[in-house]
Amino acid sequence: MKFAVIGGDLRAARLCALLCADGHEVRAFALEKAELDAEIISCADPAEAAQDADCAVLPLPVTNVRGRLNTPLSARACTVAEALDALTPEQIVCAGRVDAETWTAARARHLTLIDFFEREELCVLNAVATAEGAVGILMQETPVTLWGMRILVIGFGRVGKLLADRLKGLGARVAVSARNHGDMAWIRALNYEALDTRALEGQLGQFDAVVNTVPAPVLGENRLRELKPGALCMDLASKPGGMDFAAAGKLGVRAVWALSLPGEVAPVSAGTIIRDTIYNILGERV
Amino acid sequence: MKFAVIGGDLRAARLCALLCADGHEVRAFALEKAELDAEIISCADPAEAAQDADCAVLPLPVTNVRGRLNTPLSARACTVAEALDALTPEQIVCAGRVDAETWTAARARHLTLIDFFEREELCVLNAVATAEGAVGILMQETPVTLWGMRILVIGFGRVGKLLADRLKGLGARVAVSARNHGDMAWIRALNYEALDTRALEGQLGQFDAVVNTVPAPVLGENRLRELKPGALCMDLASKPGGMDFAAAGKLGVRAVWALSLPGEVAPVSAGTIIRDTIYNILGERV
Amino acid sequence: MKFAVIGGDLRAARLCALLCADGHEVRAFALEKAELDAEIISCADPAEAAQDADCAVLPLPVTNVRGRLNTPLSARACTVAEALDALTPEQIVCAGRVDAETWTAARARHLTLIDFFEREELCVLNAVATAEGAVGILMQETPVTLWGMRILVIGFGRVGKLLADRLKGLGARVAVSARNHGDMAWIRALNYEALDTRALEGQLGQFDAVVNTVPAPVLGENRLRELKPGALCMDLASKPGGMDFAAAGKLGVRAVWALSLPGEVAPVSAGTIIRDTIYNILGERV
Amino acid sequence: MKFAVIGGDLRAARLCALLCADGHEVRAFALEKAELDAEIISCADPAEAAQDADCAVLPLPVTNVRGRLNTPLSARACTVAEALDALTPEQIVCAGRVDAETWTAARARHLTLIDFFEREELCVLNAVATAEGAVGILMQETPVTLWGMRILVIGFGRVGKLLADRLKGLGARVAVSARNHGDMAWIRALNYEALDTRALEGQLGQFDAVVNTVPAPVLGENRLRELKPGALCMDLASKPGGMDFAAAGKLGVRAVWALSLPGEVAPVSAGTIIRDTIYNILGERV
Repeated sequence: MKFAVIGGDLRAARLCALLCADGHEVRAFALEKAELDAEIISCADPAEAAQDADCAVLPLPVTNVRGRLNTPLSARACTVAEALDALTPEQIVCAGRVDAETWTAARARHLTLIDFFEREELCVLNAVATAEGAVGILMQETPVTLWGMRILVIGFGRVGKLLADRLKGLGARVAVSARNHGDMAWIRALNYEALDTRALEGQLGQFDAVVNTVPAPVLGENRLRELKPGALCMDLASKPGGMDFAAAGKLGVRAVWALSLPGEVAPVSAGTIIRDTIYNILGERV
Repeated sequence: MKFAVIGGDLRAARLCALLCADGHEVRAFALEKAELDAEIISCADPAEAAQDADCAVLPLPVTNVRGRLNTPLSARACTVAEALDALTPEQIVCAGRVDAETWTAARARHLTLIDFFEREELCVLNAVATAEGAVGILMQETPVTLWGMRILVIGFGRVGKLLADRLKGLGARVAVSARNHGDMAWIRALNYEALDTRALEGQLGQFDAVVNTVPAPVLGENRLRELKPGALCMDLASKPGGMDFAAAGKLGVRAVWALSLPGEVAPVSAGTIIRDTIYNILGERV
Repeated sequence: MKFAVIGGDLRAARLCALLCADGHEVRAFALEKAELDAEIISCADPAEAAQDADCAVLPLPVTNVRGRLNTPLSARACTVAEALDALTPEQIVCAGRVDAETWTAARARHLTLIDFFEREELCVLNAVATAEGAVGILMQETPVTLWGMRILVIGFGRVGKLLADRLKGLGARVAVSARNHGDMAWIRALNYEALDTRALEGQLGQFDAVVNTVPAPVLGENRLRELKPGALCMDLASKPGGMDFAAAGKLGVRAVWALSLPGEVAPVSAGTIIRDTIYNILGERV
Repeated sequence: MKFAVIGGDLRAARLCALLCADGHEVRAFALEKAELDAEIISCADPAEAAQDADCAVLPLPVTNVRGRLNTPLSARACTVAEALDALTPEQIVCAGRVDAETWTAARARHLTLIDFFEREELCVLNAVATAEGAVGILMQETPVTLWGMRILVIGFGRVGKLLADRLKGLGARVAVSARNHGDMAWIRALNYEALDTRALEGQLGQFDAVVNTVPAPVLGENRLRELKPGALCMDLASKPGGMDFAAAGKLGVRAVWALSLPGEVAPVSAGTIIRDTIYNILGERV
């Protein structure tokens, strides 16, 4: 097959290499800082890259903070419109964390746009990398072994489930909080202590570290005040996060906000996950 | 509080003892073979048991094969109508696996009927007991250790998840099959081999045991024919199950259909789970 | 190679089948009740079986309670002397749990006798089967799930280590007792609660089950008296065991003495382990 | 009790704080850079610190590279002789990794010297910290998740056992090599792939990372040549280590030699372990 990889970070560069190694023809645009293999054809504009492609892959996330196409590995600025204009309705277009404007622009062009960041398999394996990244930070930021640490994980979604599993495997004493009886039953069935996220008051002082995974304000000033001196408080929830960082600062809490861990701690794995997900998407289209 | 426990098996008897130990007043009907504690008041009919009760607990499942109230621990036959007539709309009525006719009859009487078997927390902890029961059967039915056995678990619902976890803990080499990429990603993230339930052909010959948890015809004659001679094939799915038992018989497959494991292998735990779930239901009503 | 398998139980029968499947010539004596495969040559006396053999395998244990060769699968009684007289110093003779008299008799004949029951690899894998068997008994003998049970394992030798690992994998809350600080550190490092076997007094009442693996009198009347009513007390230590069974009977303790679990719960695995160990012995002789 | 802590690194400083928090009187010498709590009495020379002490604690390791007392947290150089001269035979003297000269000097003074680094409980819990440190390095040094990585651990001693356990808990696919059939049986019983350290040739190309824990030349040029390009090769064995670093450099192998991980990654835990070990030593002396 023929692929066009248009913009993106080290994960996109890795994706090019993997697709190429699988025998596909790969044309890349706006990845010039990544030292791509000679077999990958570097193109001067999106149209050259997209020409004849069966599948085009746009960045994750598709746009940067200025609303342009996300091209951190290129000096060349490019609008989303410019990228989409290069594509046709017959091509499968995959992109990550697609915003409303990009959806609208794609629909106006009748493009077949799929957000691979909405695929469960990508989210699960991303959560594996996030959980590992969080373990790495806990190790670095504490002068004690994870073994024997009392750690609270708030939330039992993908990251919460996997982080609890990994921490237990390292010998930490793990409690997990959730908001409903069903999740609490799962937490107990998998041999963690179960707490109620809505009623953590009076419990927080027993933990050496607290890791939030819930994108809701669960760690406000009153709760932060309960933490043991020196306890680490890490937020893995995406913006706006779940911790009151201003209050944490005021109280002297050791607070860490860790975002985008997969791309940082395991870009090669993240590229592989995107590749596999794109193959799944294409497989279901046949 | 005042509880009426009307019919049911050893789990209902255990429930009486637990409620009583927690300081509640308990009146029981149709549990006379269970040697209830003296503090529990045995009643001659449903009306006597239900009188003044805050909460009435009917059997799990609520009806037996003849469509009557499920009262295996009593010589006294009783219709569902007779039991429901004893109850009032002010009482919380809990029952398990409520069938359509019982729902209709309860609605006609404006009763507050809740099926505790639909509660996630009960289902999860029931699945813990089912998974353990399945492990016990695998141990008994095979002349080898689970350690080192190649076992396929079909389905990654509650029982599939917990059974895979327990088998891995015992050192079996576990593969799990599912039907979508998201579940397959979870299976891999939790360190099992992932297979596609729709495409097991050509794979089944490598397993020493296959355990189905899916209530759909996944183990038909062609697949059963692939099994290694002597491989154990266990079905945990409720009626009509997922294995073609007639074909299994014809092919000489060692087939086991294990139903209602929680009540059998762990009635005391099962009683505790029902008690906790009823408390959760009552807590949410306040 | 040519093997002679002389006496033994189902494990010996399994050993014949495995050796034969590996392409070896196998002559068997005193296994006639085992329905051996046609390729295995059944012999009328030890001499016929041993003739030309490179390696002879005697039973595990080598003698029965009457001091004769252990031949439970045969009507034919045979003395150890009769078996040994059939062998020559050039042959490797493997036997299990060799008693002092057999050692003396073998030495007098200058035989190359090796006790495979003294090999660490056999003992470890035997302990795997013992641990599984113990798990199976705990499941059968209790009306609750192992998940959530408080279980004490006394001793951190092979069986203690593996049993603790398996119980934790099933979700039991496991404490392990040992007699020295080094073992207690290992117990804690592997994430169990560590207790001191010499100071269990005042601690035993918290457990739902106690499993002894130590061949020393660790569960005397005073300790048994502390057990929670209904708690299961299992002894896995070989004779004379570690529990005072008379006291247990007097006190109404639910006591189980489980011996020789590998041959009972997993004879096929046990046969494989013996085969592998014999290969290792032969490999080291070359 | 009265303790004298004479020299040492952050672990010694932590030890002072812990002993003090347990209600003991603590006099310290040569820890002035550590910001000790006011309750701990800083002394100008070893004699002042040791005066009246029940137990004196010397550094781990006791001497530095110049053969002097190991006092990295002090500007004050001090010979071992000077420290030992301050002590009396009635005092328990604990020190770590005691070299031959220090043993001789202590014996000449009839001191009661105990090397706490020879205690199994300290070594085990140190190995926990070493294993965690190794996990942290593997995470940092690879652009992929540990989950799914193929990792070989060479050696099944304390560090090998615990590292394999932790890596498996994180979802790595772990093989462990050992030199005898007994250890290989343990490796298999605990559900790792078992390899023979003496016969790794032809196997090394399948691993993404190799971690050596054996203080013997197990990773020579020929074996290093087999490694997959980009594979990480980490040596945890103390000097002289087990890897040929010159050959690794020549071959372009990504080699890491990680020494003294406990003091680096978990000084607080390491201090606690030393404290507990000293208590055990004192407890056995009573």
